[in-house]
Amino acid sequence: MANLLQILDFIGVAVFAISGGIVASRLKLDILAFVLLATFTGIGGGTLRDLLLGAPVFWVGDQTYLLICIAAGIATWYLAHLGEALGKPLRWADAVGMASYSVMGAAKTLTIIDRPVVAVLMGVATAAFGGVIRDTIASQPSAIINREIYLTAAFGGAFSYVMMVEATMPPWPAAIVSGVIAFGLRAGAI
Amino acid sequence: MANLLQILDFIGVAVFAISGGIVASRLKLDILAFVLLATFTGIGGGTLRDLLLGAPVFWVGDQTYLLICIAAGIATWYLAHLGEALGKPLRWADAVGMASYSVMGAAKTLTIIDRPVVAVLMGVATAAFGGVIRDTIASQPSAIINREIYLTAAFGGAFSYVMMVEATMPPWPAAIVSGVIAFGLRAGAI
Amino acid sequence: MANLLQILDFIGVAVFAISGGIVASRLKLDILAFVLLATFTGIGGGTLRDLLLGAPVFWVGDQTYLLICIAAGIATWYLAHLGEALGKPLRWADAVGMASYSVMGAAKTLTIIDRPVVAVLMGVATAAFGGVIRDTIASQPSAIINREIYLTAAFGGAFSYVMMVEATMPPWPAAIVSGVIAFGLRAGAI
Repeated sequence: MANLLQILDFIGVAVFAISGGIVASRLKLDILAFVLLATFTGIGGGTLRDLLLGAPVFWVGDQTYLLICIAAGIATWYLAHLGEALGKPLRWADAVGMASYSVMGAAKTLTIIDRPVVAVLMGVATAAFGGVIRDTIASQPSAIINREIYLTAAFGGAFSYVMMVEATMPPWPAAIVSGVIAFGLRAGAI
Repeated sequence: MANLLQILDFIGVAVFAISGGIVASRLKLDILAFVLLATFTGIGGGTLRDLLLGAPVFWVGDQTYLLICIAAGIATWYLAHLGEALGKPLRWADAVGMASYSVMGAAKTLTIIDRPVVAVLMGVATAAFGGVIRDTIASQPSAIINREIYLTAAFGGAFSYVMMVEATMPPWPAAIVSGVIAFGLRAGAI
Repeated sequence: MANLLQILDFIGVAVFAISGGIVASRLKLDILAFVLLATFTGIGGGTLRDLLLGAPVFWVGDQTYLLICIAAGIATWYLAHLGEALGKPLRWADAVGMASYSVMGAAKTLTIIDRPVVAVLMGVATAAFGGVIRDTIASQPSAIINREIYLTAAFGGAFSYVMMVEATMPPWPAAIVSGVIAFGLRAGAI
């Protein structure tokens, strides 16, 4: 299970970090701002989750996460000239990240405390919060308003994961099925 | 005393959750967004308080709070067609919620750590933060600027509660008197 | 070392608190709003740092910090009629505060956990976050976009401090040299 959480975490962090870099690219910022926006966006959702759960913040103990965000910020900066050509593949990658994060948020909560309602909220908040931070820092209209389908998809992923685990399905298949549900709900609107 | 804290908490959470739902109604969002905005607004202030105090976050251990927020979000969604007709009763309900939260924030702080200045700040921050979260997520101008009377009322409630408890008045009457002070300061401007 | 951290903390908190008061002055708010904006801005960065590190929040245990912020808010309110005449000295004071905070954020992190990448991020986040909170509450465009030089200077301070300490330089001279580096990078753009 630890491996599953880790893989989902790396994917979610990397993809959200790239989306932070894309926003930096649209605002024509310098490379340090790319790295910082990528980092805040990449680790934002998981940081909120860990603070609320009273768990150690995941990236403080393991620098791999920050190095992933730094690499994502630098890579986005080098590719910034591609501009809007990156838009379409990114929406797909973002859907993967959201799906990973929503399941991961619910799964980590259930490993710490057995509260299904809390676990669903954590999944949705984890998937959405990185984007809220990114948009707030960048003074852009918050994503939550224009992206109801985003919230619905994150809710679908977290809710179905918690339901399946409560019905005693093992975590691995439950994570894969609910991740596909979240991704499918989002992909249908791209 | 635990009962007092709990009652104040339930009232504050429910009323702030409803105000989050009202904002969702003005933005014409879907039902899931109603529930999420209601939840973030309802639990926001108390979550900040518990994080700052290093206390367990109140709604992680007791799902009742989240269920209240979910019910408030759904109820607001069903009543959304009433629209602006809800405005006036809501301002009164909001005044009750702010009064509850300001006293509650100060009271919980004093049960954990004996620092009057910290307790007053927690009361004001608890009462104001839910609204700041709601307005930030909804990309609306922050309430804190247009609502100086709101801050003054929350300060009045938290300050008078701390003064009375420091003067060895028992918590219950101190909470009622200071709650009435906060409510009165706010109500005078409605 | 404790003394160094404390002095840097007091300077950073006081100067950021004053900058919060200046924003309140531009928005023509009342005295309570001055005090609250000063407080949130003054303690914001350090609060984020302590929450992320899982350390007790610095101002909860020691009310001196809040009293400094309250004094800064009241002083700014009395001096508000000086208006834009305060602009130039303030930019210099703000540069001192940012330099203090960036070094302090990195230094406190290294005393708790030996992770250089985390320490650099904490230094930058600590120096920048107070301003982000201030601008979000005041519904102003976030500072991070228009102030790339600000981030660069904070990064320069935190990065050089961590490098020097990793190279086994004692904390005091490392803090002074890196503080001067951060201040110099910022001052060059005033």
